[in-house]
Amino acid sequence: MTTSRIREDVAGLIATRTPGRSLEGDLYVSPEALDLDLDAIFYRSWIFVAVEPDLPEAGDYVTVSVGRYSVIITRDDDEEIRAFHNVCRHRGSRLLDDKCGSIGNIVCPYHQWTYDQQGHLLHAESTPPGFDRSLFSLRKVNLRNVSGLIFVCLSDDPPEDFDEFASRVTPYLAPHRLPTTKIAHQIDIVENGNWKLVMENNRECTHCGGHPELLCSLFPVYGYQESDIGPRLRPAWDRYLAAKAEFEGICARNGLPWAAIEELDTRRTGFRIEREPLDMAGESFTIDGTLASRKLLADFTEPRLGRLSMHLQPNAWFHFLSDHIVTFSVLPLTADSSLLRTTWLVAADAVEGVDYDVDKLTYVWQQTNDQDRAFVARAHAGVGNPAYVPGPYLPPEYQVEAFCNWYVQRVREIL
Amino acid sequence: MTTSRIREDVAGLIATRTPGRSLEGDLYVSPEALDLDLDAIFYRSWIFVAVEPDLPEAGDYVTVSVGRYSVIITRDDDEEIRAFHNVCRHRGSRLLDDKCGSIGNIVCPYHQWTYDQQGHLLHAESTPPGFDRSLFSLRKVNLRNVSGLIFVCLSDDPPEDFDEFASRVTPYLAPHRLPTTKIAHQIDIVENGNWKLVMENNRECTHCGGHPELLCSLFPVYGYQESDIGPRLRPAWDRYLAAKAEFEGICARNGLPWAAIEELDTRRTGFRIEREPLDMAGESFTIDGTLASRKLLADFTEPRLGRLSMHLQPNAWFHFLSDHIVTFSVLPLTADSSLLRTTWLVAADAVEGVDYDVDKLTYVWQQTNDQDRAFVARAHAGVGNPAYVPGPYLPPEYQVEAFCNWYVQRVREIL
Amino acid sequence: MTTSRIREDVAGLIATRTPGRSLEGDLYVSPEALDLDLDAIFYRSWIFVAVEPDLPEAGDYVTVSVGRYSVIITRDDDEEIRAFHNVCRHRGSRLLDDKCGSIGNIVCPYHQWTYDQQGHLLHAESTPPGFDRSLFSLRKVNLRNVSGLIFVCLSDDPPEDFDEFASRVTPYLAPHRLPTTKIAHQIDIVENGNWKLVMENNRECTHCGGHPELLCSLFPVYGYQESDIGPRLRPAWDRYLAAKAEFEGICARNGLPWAAIEELDTRRTGFRIEREPLDMAGESFTIDGTLASRKLLADFTEPRLGRLSMHLQPNAWFHFLSDHIVTFSVLPLTADSSLLRTTWLVAADAVEGVDYDVDKLTYVWQQTNDQDRAFVARAHAGVGNPAYVPGPYLPPEYQVEAFCNWYVQRVREIL
Repeated sequence: MTTSRIREDVAGLIATRTPGRSLEGDLYVSPEALDLDLDAIFYRSWIFVAVEPDLPEAGDYVTVSVGRYSVIITRDDDEEIRAFHNVCRHRGSRLLDDKCGSIGNIVCPYHQWTYDQQGHLLHAESTPPGFDRSLFSLRKVNLRNVSGLIFVCLSDDPPEDFDEFASRVTPYLAPHRLPTTKIAHQIDIVENGNWKLVMENNRECTHCGGHPELLCSLFPVYGYQESDIGPRLRPAWDRYLAAKAEFEGICARNGLPWAAIEELDTRRTGFRIEREPLDMAGESFTIDGTLASRKLLADFTEPRLGRLSMHLQPNAWFHFLSDHIVTFSVLPLTADSSLLRTTWLVAADAVEGVDYDVDKLTYVWQQTNDQDRAFVARAHAGVGNPAYVPGPYLPPEYQVEAFCNWYVQRVREIL
Repeated sequence: MTTSRIREDVAGLIATRTPGRSLEGDLYVSPEALDLDLDAIFYRSWIFVAVEPDLPEAGDYVTVSVGRYSVIITRDDDEEIRAFHNVCRHRGSRLLDDKCGSIGNIVCPYHQWTYDQQGHLLHAESTPPGFDRSLFSLRKVNLRNVSGLIFVCLSDDPPEDFDEFASRVTPYLAPHRLPTTKIAHQIDIVENGNWKLVMENNRECTHCGGHPELLCSLFPVYGYQESDIGPRLRPAWDRYLAAKAEFEGICARNGLPWAAIEELDTRRTGFRIEREPLDMAGESFTIDGTLASRKLLADFTEPRLGRLSMHLQPNAWFHFLSDHIVTFSVLPLTADSSLLRTTWLVAADAVEGVDYDVDKLTYVWQQTNDQDRAFVARAHAGVGNPAYVPGPYLPPEYQVEAFCNWYVQRVREIL
Repeated sequence: MTTSRIREDVAGLIATRTPGRSLEGDLYVSPEALDLDLDAIFYRSWIFVAVEPDLPEAGDYVTVSVGRYSVIITRDDDEEIRAFHNVCRHRGSRLLDDKCGSIGNIVCPYHQWTYDQQGHLLHAESTPPGFDRSLFSLRKVNLRNVSGLIFVCLSDDPPEDFDEFASRVTPYLAPHRLPTTKIAHQIDIVENGNWKLVMENNRECTHCGGHPELLCSLFPVYGYQESDIGPRLRPAWDRYLAAKAEFEGICARNGLPWAAIEELDTRRTGFRIEREPLDMAGESFTIDGTLASRKLLADFTEPRLGRLSMHLQPNAWFHFLSDHIVTFSVLPLTADSSLLRTTWLVAADAVEGVDYDVDKLTYVWQQTNDQDRAFVARAHAGVGNPAYVPGPYLPPEYQVEAFCNWYVQRVREIL
């Protein structure tokens, strides 16, 4: 129930935004801005919410909350994945409570209205003469499946460029055969900061000195150009250039595209994708860069496939490696808190304790997530201070700037 | 401090209400709608807050919160029951903190302003010359006592039809002699849902399949007509009709009125009252329908007096039986939570452990309350989803519709 | 993001204020009024936040939150005390988390922007060509040090009468040599009431019957005139007059000013200062009035110096005694809660366990704070009741009235 008055206040903050600078503080901390973000971003964009292996069997479902919405994603007996609003058409009761499970028909626990897997109302008791069940099907939610990544869009008018995005990234993603993997581990953490700060933090590596475990395998020059490199980063930069020269040959031999596509703020479904080498052994996100799972994905035979990294507006990033995939989704809870879900996927036939160890597989990103959580909380505390004035994004932070550009465009579209 | 802007938004939701359908979601979940509900309903209607046995002795008091108000209800030395605002006339300190207790004069703990049982200011220190104590009496709250049920009205202009309501229901209630009973048990539970959903849930039995303990004695056809009965309910319906035929004779022999009066949405003080038979042994709300207390109330000699049930807008329902009385009051805490108080009363001379056992007496409604709490939480979670659209009330839910009609009328009166 | 609409509502409550009466309830309990209070009072007045002994050594710092601001107060290597906003000029990260500590340069933990003790940006990595570091110094906060009491003003246009206030009170305060003391104990308690109720409670002694420990040494006639004294207070009043007659001689012999200056609501920096005798042994705030620390402050030789008490709008009060100093600051947390910080200071060379015992030193005010916390919670609960109507301040409450007058003037200035 955001009044037009409050919307005007937020609109003023958007209007005064200076390109190249961080956003006004109230856009990060005010509940009114969150309402606007939900409306402008999360209720209109394609949102990454799950992976196919979240629903391995027919009848499996997951529920996911996006702002005030709750969505059911099911795999029906014909293996088709569908999405419905988690609301009974009778008097609005929530249908499914659990985060995931397995069902046949969907039966509302309140008055037993019963829906089939396609959402049709099969049964309702004590209906009056002439009651037309066909008017009370579950409301569908738009869904797309891109190489096993599940996206929903809560708007009836979803962004039209998504299919073109999908066709561009599929040659990069498909070789890893995500639908044939299984979930090795999944964790949800709550970050004490606005969702935009979680995203901004992910879009630059100028804070990577705070991630010692990650830097064993990740070159800390992500986002940098030659001209940005100072004495501290020179050795890593030289190592990165050498690794990259060899890496392109590996990719070519394995028939894998690697070149960066970067359309972060120039389209509705902003994204960036690139395959890049890793440091040390060059195989995976581990302390020495060697494999985290001995079973390679798909039909890969070469472990040194680096990281295929995709960043997607507004709420996700992904790393596809030779031995595992790790996905990240960010969902706002309040203006001040956000849910980060991290999912690690390995080959379906990899055996825990034999081919991989969950602690080793997840160690680097669990540490990195914890460190980022502290950075985000610190950033949120600061921008809520009225003494904060938007500051400059430096050259290696250009992707943060691109995120803000994309965000401001989306908000302006609805104001 | 509800601004007129926000009130316009809520007014819009009220204006678009479709008869026969549940209310718009924001009327259930928004804090602004709760402010309006308090103003339109709880600060203007007669609200059931206590029973005479809450104050058995002269000097006893109870305090009750209704929205932002706190009210003191006292029984003075002349046995008159009175109500005052729980606010000192000096600088506004709360006077009494406890839920109940016993007092002589009311002495403010802050600066010792002292009031007698009629609310007159008896003493205040260091007052200036000419200070007129008579201007600083405690502010009175309107109070009515209907056969031992205590109602307050926070408005200076209480609904005028209340006395007529009282005269209509007194012949039903008085024979149970509530003022001669004692409280055997009283519990407060917090439901995670809007107060209207708590009331709506109570106004229909189409969810009664979720109340196995209650259905041992309650016929699950409350609110149903012959035409609403499907195969599932046919056996219960037939049993109900047979019981009812015999029951009217019992009532007649005992001089007790039983016919339904139903004026739920056609008057300011909407209500419904009817005496109906119980299932099984037909005596009380127990697992086998036998008495929960061996001491019958009043001068009853017949245990099979069924349930005299009264439903009252906006916040109460009651069951009067031959051996006990159970009362229910609902008070909003926040838009998202409500306080349900349940009170069990037995004959004053019934001896705990001899004539009745508290666990047995309270078992059925404690279970039922818990089950309803889950239903209400589920309903609240659902209607807060923007994908919720108001759905149809079915014929056996006509009393839910009547509640909504009554509610919408009250809100429209003040908009 | 207080909208003009809401500000109009609060303005209405201010406009209808009746002199001589307590404030309208929503001025105490509504979040909108708190926003206004922060803007009108806490972001524009000189606010007492620390004492010099909070920062005994060069490099020491404390952080303090005032509303949504966080301020760093540091003592640099040249012993100068400075204040900065606790916000990095890069992307707004909070710089320092701890309540106090010791530092050299201030290094932001997020991206290592490094500031010197004067707030200049010394270092930032990957800046573009032409980046002018001098534009990104830490933002300064106005600071004043009055005989060791540290005040900050968050406005760029601080009240101009502060220096004149300082010159008036310095002859009273300076002889106690606060900068040469040390902190013996400091406690923060959260009061469940609006900050104005905490202040009002402190501005009168008509509730002092609730402070039995304090009344061992404090005459319960603070704020009273002869004409306000009733039979209950007559013995204390007579004792007070006798003590005062002797006390003025002691002050004169020790060269200490004692006469009251009272400009509570007649100036921007409203204050009251007076040196008054204590009851019993007359030396300190203890159960028998004897010293709490055997080491007298400064070069005092006479223990019976009474209490030099200063009250300051909007948020502080102080008692300077011969053997210790106790300071109090009140900061709003929410409309419903406030932080009270109490600091006890003793001579720097007093030895704990030998010259003073912390439990004995702090006993009286710990008890008194606890009692006041209950009074404030009770008052807050009461004024939030819509049945509350502003009541009369009595003659011995004239300083409460002065506080409200001062408050209303400040709010009117910005409306």
